[in-house]
Amino acid sequence: MPVPAAGLPARVRIYEVGARDGLQNEKTTVPTEVKAEFVHRLAEAGLTTIEATSFVHPKWVPQLADAEELFPRVAGLPVALPVLVPNERGLDRALALGARRVAVFASATESFAKANLNRTLDESLAMFAPVVRRAKDEGVLVRGYVSMCFGDPWEGPVPAAQVVRVCRALRDMGCDELSLGDTIGVATPGQVRALLSLLAAEGVPTEMVGVHFHDTYGQALANTYAALEQGVTTVDASAGGLGGCPYAKSATGNLATEDLVWMLRGLGIDTGIDLGRLVATSVWMADRLGRPSPSRTVRALGNPTQPHKDQ
Amino acid sequence: MPVPAAGLPARVRIYEVGARDGLQNEKTTVPTEVKAEFVHRLAEAGLTTIEATSFVHPKWVPQLADAEELFPRVAGLPVALPVLVPNERGLDRALALGARRVAVFASATESFAKANLNRTLDESLAMFAPVVRRAKDEGVLVRGYVSMCFGDPWEGPVPAAQVVRVCRALRDMGCDELSLGDTIGVATPGQVRALLSLLAAEGVPTEMVGVHFHDTYGQALANTYAALEQGVTTVDASAGGLGGCPYAKSATGNLATEDLVWMLRGLGIDTGIDLGRLVATSVWMADRLGRPSPSRTVRALGNPTQPHKDQ
Repeated sequence: MPVPAAGLPARVRIYEVGARDGLQNEKTTVPTEVKAEFVHRLAEAGLTTIEATSFVHPKWVPQLADAEELFPRVAGLPVALPVLVPNERGLDRALALGARRVAVFASATESFAKANLNRTLDESLAMFAPVVRRAKDEGVLVRGYVSMCFGDPWEGPVPAAQVVRVCRALRDMGCDELSLGDTIGVATPGQVRALLSLLAAEGVPTEMVGVHFHDTYGQALANTYAALEQGVTTVDASAGGLGGCPYAKSATGNLATEDLVWMLRGLGIDTGIDLGRLVATSVWMADRLGRPSPSRTVRALGNPTQPHKDQ
Repeated sequence: MPVPAAGLPARVRIYEVGARDGLQNEKTTVPTEVKAEFVHRLAEAGLTTIEATSFVHPKWVPQLADAEELFPRVAGLPVALPVLVPNERGLDRALALGARRVAVFASATESFAKANLNRTLDESLAMFAPVVRRAKDEGVLVRGYVSMCFGDPWEGPVPAAQVVRVCRALRDMGCDELSLGDTIGVATPGQVRALLSLLAAEGVPTEMVGVHFHDTYGQALANTYAALEQGVTTVDASAGGLGGCPYAKSATGNLATEDLVWMLRGLGIDTGIDLGRLVATSVWMADRLGRPSPSRTVRALGNPTQPHKDQ
């Protein structure tokens, strides 16, 4: 049994977002049965938390318009299957299908709250409050996403104090966990360290904080390593780096789960994931999408002629 | 003036390897005048150390067979222009052209010494000794590359003590600096930390050590961050991630200089590099090579419609 490097957590939970955050940003329309098989394969590869879909209005995210068809096909899996709910209507739909974990999607900036929800930041938080309250009343676990935690396309760098304010509001509302999103992928490890330190100092315990990095500028894994050094034990990632086409000019892909697993394994941190099965799943999904995975680990290990000995 | 995060160096020297390590691994044959313009553009972008070419026998590296034609075209630039010399014959050729910095290319493993040089490790070190001695006699600065410092395609994980032995031998020979190569890109940050700590404890000062990561498994920048935390101030990188086709299955690209500069800038670490000019250079070179750059930062910033505010 490998021993994690000094100062790093012994175990990390990977929160898999490929089926939701990944597929909602892919150009190709994926049939419901392929999505269901994807989630099944992810569970078989050892992922224990798999965000399955989103109950947002189909007008906004047509790629996930089949949430009602998909969820029952995966609900029996012995893993946690959170779903995104944008509002009370979305929560109703999720609860009706028996969802036991939901997530709301908040913003750290006024500009993104305006762009995404056409509300001020405080109005958007006020909109989430009854959603979180009702979910908690039903005994459902709630995650609060906080997007644009490091940089914002309109506002530039985001002050950490502003992120702390939103995190505290979500915690006070009843959120069980938070996910700090670098939605446009601009963060670097010093910012990650600073924000996590400030959050801990301001009463938001690191145990309730996950990190969600995008690889737009190639920083996602370095940022993740900095977060692990701060004691973070929940990391969001997307199998095969799904989400945003890697060959478009403005690549905005998620951190690839495989690249993360490679690092965690090397660090001696337990994840319970079978990397070979996960890579095979991403190769299979890439075939369905008709393009190669942007994950470097998938490209390296997905090639059976690769001569590297297992590390 | 930004202040570097606590525990990180105030300044990092980027040792640019795109013109040598990058181009020698590209499939496309690049004309000498394009190579010369590439080196000029890199210097104009603010890079101060640019490995220009290799005086290895053209039979082994046909892509760099024009070293004699190229070097005089760049020699007047006000930057350091090291060149690779495999043996005494290569050193003669480099000295005849006025090179003031050379590099030898050693291995940390028996298997790679055998595969690359058809010698045992000790035989290969014995071969370098007179090269280093003569270079030092001529007042020329010598870098010692140590390849396969973390993993080896035949041997698997490489014991740190073995790397230390080779590093000490090169230091004792007279090498001014060392470059620790993760030639197959398998390393993770804990290994980096462990090797650098051991080297420092065994009398190889961190000031003489550079790191050279490949991004085969997406680990290069995370490993670089771990090295910075250990006090390393020389980082090898390749403009645009040149070296190894990113769309081949077995991607073995170098760390992209742009992704590194993005991180260093975010960390408040001074590099003196104009990122915009560097990205423009890599976009220009990608056009010459007929394929997009694998650097995520080049892809993000090379797109003029990208809406992100400067961070």
